[in-house]
Amino acid sequence: MRFLSYYADGGIHLGVETEGGVVDLTEADGTPASALELVAGGSAALDAVRRYLGTAPPTRALETLALASCVPDPGKIVCVGANYRRHSAEAGLPVPDNPIYFAKYRNSLSGHRQEVAIPPGTVRVDYEVELVAVIGSPARGVTPAAALDYVFGYATGNDLSAREHQTRTSQWMYGKISDGFAPLGPYLVTADEVPDPQNLDLRTWVNGELRQDASTSDMVFSVAMLVSDLSQVTTLEPGDVIFTGTPEGVILGMDEQVWLKPGDHIECEVLGLGRLSTTLVKG
Amino acid sequence: MRFLSYYADGGIHLGVETEGGVVDLTEADGTPASALELVAGGSAALDAVRRYLGTAPPTRALETLALASCVPDPGKIVCVGANYRRHSAEAGLPVPDNPIYFAKYRNSLSGHRQEVAIPPGTVRVDYEVELVAVIGSPARGVTPAAALDYVFGYATGNDLSAREHQTRTSQWMYGKISDGFAPLGPYLVTADEVPDPQNLDLRTWVNGELRQDASTSDMVFSVAMLVSDLSQVTTLEPGDVIFTGTPEGVILGMDEQVWLKPGDHIECEVLGLGRLSTTLVKG
Repeated sequence: MRFLSYYADGGIHLGVETEGGVVDLTEADGTPASALELVAGGSAALDAVRRYLGTAPPTRALETLALASCVPDPGKIVCVGANYRRHSAEAGLPVPDNPIYFAKYRNSLSGHRQEVAIPPGTVRVDYEVELVAVIGSPARGVTPAAALDYVFGYATGNDLSAREHQTRTSQWMYGKISDGFAPLGPYLVTADEVPDPQNLDLRTWVNGELRQDASTSDMVFSVAMLVSDLSQVTTLEPGDVIFTGTPEGVILGMDEQVWLKPGDHIECEVLGLGRLSTTLVKG
Repeated sequence: MRFLSYYADGGIHLGVETEGGVVDLTEADGTPASALELVAGGSAALDAVRRYLGTAPPTRALETLALASCVPDPGKIVCVGANYRRHSAEAGLPVPDNPIYFAKYRNSLSGHRQEVAIPPGTVRVDYEVELVAVIGSPARGVTPAAALDYVFGYATGNDLSAREHQTRTSQWMYGKISDGFAPLGPYLVTADEVPDPQNLDLRTWVNGELRQDASTSDMVFSVAMLVSDLSQVTTLEPGDVIFTGTPEGVILGMDEQVWLKPGDHIECEVLGLGRLSTTLVKG
């Protein structure tokens, strides 16, 4: 199933995509009211959604909805750097021996078709298409073999980055946390629709021009290894999201670096998870 | 005023310290029900608390309360590294040209007198007493001169660190995010009781032995500079907390490094903000 979160009635509603359009779950009785309730509810929540869809509920057109991040309020946004072999090469970084983690905050999240402002004075803005894993049940000390059992689903993400801020000091986070710099969606897709997260094509277009075109098979540390590794030191919780790194093709790796600017239209897609579009505006 | 958050009735209540004991604010009408409501409510919320205290409400003894982090659910936990001149020297780091930021997550928070588990296999555990600033109103693009107007109050924090995980890759976060590794409290103290955040003594004791003994006057980047700098790229929101870095005296800087172990009792104090105690246990 494919879930969406969208702005309605002064809050954020949860919906599910059907052939006839999007069905609102927040207004219905007995169905999860938010993405966090959905992922924490697991198979029981999914059963409740299926039962409700059996009643032929009303639908609305996706085009009419103002989408939020498909997980609007995660407890953690974990990001992974240099996690594709060819991207490490273009970024001038060695292929890492261990996963490299940093964070974004929830005000960095933005939804499909949302405008994102470039902060005043920020110049070196870059895109990064990423497969994003969403945790479904508490994970602590899990093995790589068991780790995917703790993943509720997946989404397309864009780890927008301000390179001059990212490399200002040894720690990258300052270049990663601007408002809206973590587009996520459009859909939260349940894990049963993703038989192998390490065999997904992912792409980025800027103003229609293909820039990134790779496969998650080039990842250094798989989703399962990342979930396991993080769970050795912390408890991963339902709704936590993991941006698993970007493949080659970012502006940072180009000989001639033409940075993103207001008016640019970026589309990111992990095949099967939906295409995520973002328009940059002047901040 | 000095506020506390504590476990009660299956949730977390907000209280305020008085001469006669702690007054519960969550159960009362018209007063803020949580630390986030308090800081977002600003002077109106503080006025409501003062009016309620005028009615001579019932009190309870602090010793009987199980304290949570004084801000239990911040949107951001921003940490600053190498922000004291003498600590930079002991850690073998240059005094930075710009603030160095990384993150913790909210499941790292813990309260005064809480036990914190050392994860299995983690060995090089260290303490870091820190002045923590708590944001009161949304801050975006503010100047250093105006920045302290956006700070609701202050607390004592301990940036517990697993040094082998911190230095495993270039990014420190993996050594900072274990469950409970961000003790914060006991009190959230309103800014009017802290006339100069750059002139506060701060200390750490391990099993009664003094280990850190310094002043916030040794900070490289002041609280005002940090708030201003962060607000250039992101919106700081009510309840966001900033761990502003630790002074010299950590185990990392010692010739003979005897790491913290289960059973150790750590006390951190920023003078005037309260003493924060943590007992380590086996994870």
